[in-house]
Amino acid sequence: MAITLPGQTLRGVAAKLRQLSYVPTSWQGVLAGLNADGREQLQTFFDELVLEGGTPQLIAKVLEHLADQREALQLERDAWSFVWSGPEPAHAKTADTFATVDQLIQHAESSLLIATYNIGLSSQFQDLLKSIADRLESGQIQRVELFFHPIQIADRLGTEPLKTIRQWFDKDVWPWPTKPLAYVDQRLSSGSAERCYQHSKVVVADADTNRSSALVTSANFSETAQRHNFEAGWLVRQPWRADQVANHFHEMVQEGLFVAI
Amino acid sequence: MAITLPGQTLRGVAAKLRQLSYVPTSWQGVLAGLNADGREQLQTFFDELVLEGGTPQLIAKVLEHLADQREALQLERDAWSFVWSGPEPAHAKTADTFATVDQLIQHAESSLLIATYNIGLSSQFQDLLKSIADRLESGQIQRVELFFHPIQIADRLGTEPLKTIRQWFDKDVWPWPTKPLAYVDQRLSSGSAERCYQHSKVVVADADTNRSSALVTSANFSETAQRHNFEAGWLVRQPWRADQVANHFHEMVQEGLFVAI
Repeated sequence: MAITLPGQTLRGVAAKLRQLSYVPTSWQGVLAGLNADGREQLQTFFDELVLEGGTPQLIAKVLEHLADQREALQLERDAWSFVWSGPEPAHAKTADTFATVDQLIQHAESSLLIATYNIGLSSQFQDLLKSIADRLESGQIQRVELFFHPIQIADRLGTEPLKTIRQWFDKDVWPWPTKPLAYVDQRLSSGSAERCYQHSKVVVADADTNRSSALVTSANFSETAQRHNFEAGWLVRQPWRADQVANHFHEMVQEGLFVAI
Repeated sequence: MAITLPGQTLRGVAAKLRQLSYVPTSWQGVLAGLNADGREQLQTFFDELVLEGGTPQLIAKVLEHLADQREALQLERDAWSFVWSGPEPAHAKTADTFATVDQLIQHAESSLLIATYNIGLSSQFQDLLKSIADRLESGQIQRVELFFHPIQIADRLGTEPLKTIRQWFDKDVWPWPTKPLAYVDQRLSSGSAERCYQHSKVVVADADTNRSSALVTSANFSETAQRHNFEAGWLVRQPWRADQVANHFHEMVQEGLFVAI
C-alpha cells in the first residue's frame, strides 16, 4: 500500500517514534490524530518493517525520508495554478489573469519575457508598460523581451516592415528611453502573404534563476482581455518548467523565426 | 540527503538486496551500475539504516516504498506537456497543437468540452467537427460541450441574439443531426454594450473519468491557428487537474455566465 500522507504528518509521527525505545504493543498512541485511512497505511507499513527487525528509531528515519518525497510531490503539485478571468463572480474563485500578470511584473528581480498577439494601448496598459520601463531604467530588472504582432498597423507596413514597426513601437508603444528587446514574426519582414501571427500569450519572470515562473494563457497583454473576457491559463512557479517556456522563445530567435525590430 | 533516483533504479537495487542474507562488507556489488551521485545517496542511506539494525531485507522493503513515491512524482511531472505550434522547424521540437487537439478528439471515449473564441469554418476544421458529430451520433462519445464566440455574426445578432446564434450554428457550424451542448457568453444574450468575449481556449477530453486530459492554449479551434500561428499551451494528462478545468466551465454555466443557445 503506497503511503499518501502529507510530509508534515509523517514528520509528526516520526517525532513520536523517536521517543520510543522499544516496539510498542500497539501503534495507537503514535498514530493518534490520523484518520482511519492514514492509520491503516502506517500500521501496515510499521508491521512490515517490524517483521524485518525494524525499531522505532529506524522507522522514524525511514518516515523522514518518505516525508522528503511527499514534500517534493507536493511542491510539484503546488507549482501549478489555474489562472482564469471573467466577469464576477467567476473572478473570485481562481487566480485572476490581470492580478497574476501584475504580480509577475512587479516581483520580477532580473528579467521579463512577454509574448502577446495584441499589445494593448489603453491607459491602464500603458501604465503597466511604463512600470516595466521604469524598473528597466533603474536597473531593478536587467532584461525585457517582448514578442508581439503589430496588429494596429498590420495593414500599412509598407516596403520596410521592420523599420515601420520600430518607429511605431518607439512612438506609440514604448516612448520611454530604455528600450526592451522587441521581436516580431519573421514572416512580417519578408512580406509573406500568409496570414499567420505570433499568437501565443506568455509571461515568464526571472528565467534561468531559482525564481523563474511562467504564465501561459489565452489572454493578450491588454487591459480588456485580462479584466473582462473569459480567459484561461496555467501559472507554473517551478524554475525548470518556466525555463522550458523561455528557452523555447530563445530558440525561435536563434532559428530566425522571430526577428528583432 | 534526499533520494532523487528514479523508481526503477530503486527497484533494481531492492531486487539485489533481497538476494543477500547478511549485511555485506561493501555495498559495491549492490550499487554497481549507478553513477557516483546515486551511489552516494544510497550508501549514506544504507549506512544510516544499518546503524539502526536494518537488514538487507528491510532495506529492500523501504526502497520499494521510496520507489512508489519516486514514481508518483514522475507521473506528476510526465502529466504535463508544453504544446506549441509555429512554422517549421519550430514544429518538430514540441508537441504540435493541431496534432494534440486531433488526438484528444479521436481518442475521447466519453466526452469532449471545447472552448474557443473563433470557431473556424474552413473545410479542414469542418472535417474535424464532423468527426465529432459522427462519434456523438454513433454513441462512441456521449457528451459534447462547445463554448464559443460567434464572431462571424457578432455584428448582426438582432433583437433575439440567442435565436440568431442557434440558427447560424445549426446551419453553418454544425449541420449534422446530433447536436452538441452549445454555450455562449451570457452578455451576448443581454445585448450588453461591453465588448467582452469568451476568449479562453480549452479542450478537455473524458472529464470525470480516469482518462481525463486537458489542453489550455492560446490557439483557437480553427485550422489556421493550429497549423501556422505561433501558439503556446499546456496539455495535462492527469484526471484531477483536467477535471479542475472542466468543472470551472460547468460552474460558469451553473452561475448563468454561459448560456445554452
